[in-house]
Amino acid sequence: MLYQTKIRMIEIFKNMQAVRHKFVVSQKVYEAFQQCSGDYNPLHTKVEFAKEKGFKECVMYGNILNAFVSMLIGECLPTKDVMINSQDITYRQPVFLNDELDAELTVEKIYESVNVVDFKFRFNNVNGKTVARGHIQISVI
Amino acid sequence: MLYQTKIRMIEIFKNMQAVRHKFVVSQKVYEAFQQCSGDYNPLHTKVEFAKEKGFKECVMYGNILNAFVSMLIGECLPTKDVMINSQDITYRQPVFLNDELDAELTVEKIYESVNVVDFKFRFNNVNGKTVARGHIQISVI
Repeated sequence: MLYQTKIRMIEIFKNMQAVRHKFVVSQKVYEAFQQCSGDYNPLHTKVEFAKEKGFKECVMYGNILNAFVSMLIGECLPTKDVMINSQDITYRQPVFLNDELDAELTVEKIYESVNVVDFKFRFNNVNGKTVARGHIQISVI
Repeated sequence: MLYQTKIRMIEIFKNMQAVRHKFVVSQKVYEAFQQCSGDYNPLHTKVEFAKEKGFKECVMYGNILNAFVSMLIGECLPTKDVMINSQDITYRQPVFLNDELDAELTVEKIYESVNVVDFKFRFNNVNGKTVARGHIQISVI
């Protein structure tokens, strides 16, 4: 892409509204994550194990939320011409099967000269509790 | 779990060898990630778009590597009694379909009094290039 076009692209992020999206950790999402990761740790697959550890049922994989972050970046921004440079996430509350999560993604900083944007995000559950939060840095490509 | 048992658990990590595991970003993994995330960004799905952006073919989703991190933590440690607190990742090189990645996970720091362990990880491709690296903090539960 031409330099001038990239400059215009980065402008899009300057007045970007917060991106909001609702995700459901459905059975389909849960099984697809297992297929993708190969992770069958008992905390996520054996209800008795999860109960022993003090949870009401199996805890969902935290990295399902990182898959949702991928979708927020890949599909919900005002341009598709983006690529993730780095990201972090902190888990604060357990997520369970069929939980509805309300995601919010907001611009934190724009580095115009290198076409880079920093975002922060959080996922809230239906009780309004933040279950995870973090940061993502993207390049406009 | 009793306090004394947790203390013994954390001991396991003191002399832990680096965990190594080979992953393949297969068609099955790629499709499962799409099902999980709902991310169909053209960089990952349209070869012409990827070529326009300077890549030889579609770039794999970075967050597939985070799914692999989940498996490293959930399945490859000397105990299954763990839960991820937080993690970060930096992407350095593109990953393509069917790439073989050699993962390495090593202990960085152990916080005995709170049963917490910090790890660092990296994924190398068959050319020995590091495609991504990052950190994970877990609790022994």
